This record gives sequence, C-alpha cells and structure tokens, in this order.
Amino acid sequence: MISKDGSPNELLLLLLSKKGQYVSGEEISARFGVSRTAIWKQVNHLRQVGYEIDSLPRVGYCLKKSPDLLLPEEIMAQINLTFLGRRIYYYPTTGSTNEEAKKIAGEGALHGSLVIAEEQTGGKGRMGRVWISPPRVGIWMSIILRPGIQPYEAPRITMTGAVAAAKAIRERTGVTCHIKWPNDILVEGRKVAGILTEMSADMDGINYVVMGIGINVNNEDFPGELKEIATSLKLARGEAVDRLDILTGFLSRFEDCYNYLEAGEFKKILEEWRLLSCNLGRRVRVVGKNFAVEGIALDVDDDGALLVKSESGQVERILSGDVSLKA
Amino acid sequence: MISKDGSPNELLLLLLSKKGQYVSGEEISARFGVSRTAIWKQVNHLRQVGYEIDSLPRVGYCLKKSPDLLLPEEIMAQINLTFLGRRIYYYPTTGSTNEEAKKIAGEGALHGSLVIAEEQTGGKGRMGRVWISPPRVGIWMSIILRPGIQPYEAPRITMTGAVAAAKAIRERTGVTCHIKWPNDILVEGRKVAGILTEMSADMDGINYVVMGIGINVNNEDFPGELKEIATSLKLARGEAVDRLDILTGFLSRFEDCYNYLEAGEFKKILEEWRLLSCNLGRRVRVVGKNFAVEGIALDVDDDGALLVKSESGQVERILSGDVSLKA
Repeated sequence: MISKDGSPNELLLLLLSKKGQYVSGEEISARFGVSRTAIWKQVNHLRQVGYEIDSLPRVGYCLKKSPDLLLPEEIMAQINLTFLGRRIYYYPTTGSTNEEAKKIAGEGALHGSLVIAEEQTGGKGRMGRVWISPPRVGIWMSIILRPGIQPYEAPRITMTGAVAAAKAIRERTGVTCHIKWPNDILVEGRKVAGILTEMSADMDGINYVVMGIGINVNNEDFPGELKEIATSLKLARGEAVDRLDILTGFLSRFEDCYNYLEAGEFKKILEEWRLLSCNLGRRVRVVGKNFAVEGIALDVDDDGALLVKSESGQVERILSGDVSLKA
Repeated sequence: MISKDGSPNELLLLLLSKKGQYVSGEEISARFGVSRTAIWKQVNHLRQVGYEIDSLPRVGYCLKKSPDLLLPEEIMAQINLTFLGRRIYYYPTTGSTNEEAKKIAGEGALHGSLVIAEEQTGGKGRMGRVWISPPRVGIWMSIILRPGIQPYEAPRITMTGAVAAAKAIRERTGVTCHIKWPNDILVEGRKVAGILTEMSADMDGINYVVMGIGINVNNEDFPGELKEIATSLKLARGEAVDRLDILTGFLSRFEDCYNYLEAGEFKKILEEWRLLSCNLGRRVRVVGKNFAVEGIALDVDDDGALLVKSESGQVERILSGDVSLKA
C-alpha cells in the first residue's frame, strides 16, 4: 500500500478526509481516473491492512475505523507540517530506523524525511546498546535533517528533540516527565523515551543528521534488567495511549522547536530544556569513555555540554557520558 | 590476486622479499603447503597482472620487475607501519575511494585501513566537486580512522594529512609545495593534491573519519578549466615520478604525524602546518556558504579555523570556505 518512495496512497487520504462519510465510487473513479474494479481491489487491500470500510451499492465507501498503525496517511490526515514528513518511509518491520535513515540520507533523501517502523529487530541506543522495539507498542522513528549549523552544534538537535518529546508527552497524556542529559526522557526515574542522534559531516559542514527517537507507549513489560530502568506511557498512566496522538503531538512540537533553532533562537529551546531537566541543581555522577566525575550539575551550555562542579570546586565541561542521579 | 577482505598474497610477499633472487619451488611448496601446480598457476596469474617472473627448472622463481601498480604487497614490502594499512583494500577501479571507505567503515573496518584505487570514475573534491582520477597516474586513496577526539576537533585530521603530504612530496621529489587552507597542496599556485575528510559521529563522539587524499603524480594534462589550476608532480619536476615512492613516503609521514595527534601533541603538527602554509600573512579572500571575507590571514587555531583580519580590523574565525590568494 505504501510505495517505496514514500508517496502516499491517495485513496486512503481521501477516505480519511471524509471519515464516517460515504464517498461514491463514481467520485473516486473520476478523481483518480481508475476503474470501479481497481477501486474495489484497493479497498480490499486496505481492509487487509486493518481498515474497516463499509460499502453500499450505489452509495459508495465509508471508512469507519483505522487500524492501530502509524501509517503516513494517518499522520498527514491529522496534522499540517511544513518541512517535517514531506516524505515518510514506513516499514512494518526494519532492523533499525536510524540505519535505514542513514542509508537513504546518503542517497539524497530530503530534509525532514521520516523513517517510521512498527517494529525494530535491531533497535539501537547510545554506545551500541539495544533499544527493545516490539511491534505496534511504541514509536520507533528517525528524522533526516540537513541543518544549517556546524558539526560542533549538533548536540542542539538532540536537545531540541528532547524538549519536543517531553512537551508532547506532557500535553497529550498528562504524564509528568523530565529530560535526563543528554538524551533520555524519564517518568519517575525510569526511561520512557530516548534519542540517538547521528551525523555525517565533511570539511564544509554537516551533510545530514539522523535523529532517532524511541518512545515506549504501550509496552506492558520489559525483559530482564530493563524492568528496573524502563517504563512506558501506558504503565505510567494506567491505560493504553493512542500512539498516533503521541506521534503527531511530537512532530508538531518538534517542527516548532526546530524552527527556533534554524532562526538562531536556540536560547528559547535551552530555556525550556532547563525547565524540563531533572539534572540541574542535583548531585550527579557522570561516567565517560576515560573519566568519571561526581558533583553538582550546574547547567548546560550552548553546545549541549553539561557543566558539573566537582568536589574540588572545579567546573568540568562534559561533552559525552552517562549520568546517574545521586540522592 | 587480492582477496576481498584485504589480506595479502603470500607468494607475492615472499617473492618481493627476495626480489632478484631465485626461490625454489620446493621452498614455496613447503612454506604454503601447496602443490607445484598451484604455484605455477599463481605465478602465471602474477605475470598476467604485470610482474616479470623468471622461472628456471630445478632452480625456482625470481621476481625481476614489478608493474607500476599500488598493490598492497608492494606497500608492505617497502615500509613497516604500526596501525596504518593493517588492511589494504585495493581496486583497479572504483567510483570513489571515500564512498567505498565509508561503506566498509560503516561495516566495522579497522582503524588504519586503506582503500586504494588505480582509477576513480567518480572521484570527489570538496563541495560536490569532481576530482579527475585517471588510471595509474595518481594516488587515489582513503584512510579509515577511529580517532579519540571530539567531532569539533576533526579538522585536525585534515591538517595532519596536509602536513604529511607536503612533507612527503618535498622529501621524495624535491618539488617545493605549500598548503592552502583548508585542504590543498599547491605547486607554484596550482593544485597538486587535495584532501577530503568526512566524518560519522554520534552523541558519544566520532564513529569514524574517512580522510581521502588525491595526489596528481604523473598526469600529463588536465581537461578544460583545470589546465589553469591543476598540476602534477611530473609536470612540476619535468620527469615521471614513482607513485609507490610517493605513497609510501606519505604513509610513513602520516603515521608519524598522526601519532603526535593521538599523543595530544597537535601543537607540533600545527607548527609545521604554519611553516608549510602559503596563506598566513597574506591577503586572502574567503567565500563561504553565506559570507565573503577579505583581509589578512593571520593564523589557524587549534580547531583548524582560519583567522582573517578584515578591513575593519575585526578578526573573523572561519570554519569552512574557499580561499583565494590576493596579490
């Protein structure tokens, strides 16, 4: 149903725009220049995907109910975005949306393209960690961006994504969440979402950025050690959450925030980031590739670095590492 | 002859190590545990590649002369390197060695791996420009690095490569060349070599850097507009230059310089860069994506940025752009 080049199914878009109403076969036929038989085939195909579509002889077709899928047409029918999602690459299952996004970005995919999967078989977190991504319970998505910033400013993208995700979750579910530097969204100390930003750059600047985001929406449990450190919006709220609602909420917020970034108003994002952070002013321990620092997290700077005041009173500027919160 | 995984031909290595001497079929047979017939086949294969190999009944094989090719075994026979060239991927022809190197780096290729081609059909320069790379006249190579530096420090790799290239050219040919910021080696104002550094990074640092270098060694002319701006070592010196000699000279120098970089002694590279530069202290015009600056090039800083003092007396810090030298 979804073509390989990310272009949408026009019939589905039409039926979605008139959800609950009957659209006559004649109208569809005239609009797309296809035969009644071709429409019938397409309708049956949509039914197989999970759409409930009524058909009445001499009246037409009526879309009654959508399946619980993050289909591009559903996103398009719900929100109007300017640059985000001009192309949406949708996969029932894929290894990793970031890997897929890097591949198509290398081949020239447009700024704002989305890669969305219902399931990831090799979902990735930071530092080669696994991101558990079972079918149809979460949002596993990567955004391809071609920002007009320098490579050293790339952490701003992650911060922008984290602000958008935290705001969307709060607005759409009422669940209180916070940002843990550099890339996690926590609910009561447990990870509900994470961001993995990857970049391809050369001497003249950034070629592309792929910002992957995983949001645990309706997970009911987590394997092994993850039980202690991960959660989902469903577990936090006590009832199932509409994935499409979270997804469209995030996309709207991300586009708003990103526009500030591009307009040189990153300060606005940074202010919101500070308000949503659970690190600042608290005692933290940060472990990096070849260091460990304990102290008070004072602030983040314009380049996304965490400023930690250690025992000795010295302020360390930390570009990457794992933070744990201390009592 | 060259296996896909970059491992060398052992028979060729043996013959090269005893160039001009006869090695008996018995010795070869015992050493590699293969039959006389298998050796005969391999020798014939080497002859087809262009090796002159004498064979005397009951005496053995003697390698008399190598073809003019940048084969991994030839490199290994000439120099001992520590991390550079632990794997050498050799191609008679490829689209772009940088593209090939990025592909194999993404699949996990080792730090120090080399991609070498006799010809590039889609050789790349900065800003999507073409790098003319005809067969067997130049050095078209990419180096895969996994440096322990932060993304903002990546320009140091380009500077290290430029210093190594300029020094190798001077030492091996006597030709006086200079570095033009950020990535070119010039002889009498014309480009004889260029570097294209590309990087893949995430929030925890650099994943890999691919440093591509093109050196025009024995080109005899250049198409169209390039006539005015490009040259080769052969044109500069008035006689053909041994490509393998330039390549091994560069690799030795690059490994030395890179070791300084990794040891935190980039200052040493920077000092050499300054001495070899043709920009510093001169009037330049720099054109970037959305700016143009004219003034005196004062210096480069630790992050590889060019510092230009403009008319107004203000010092601009330039991260990327095209420099032209003014009278």
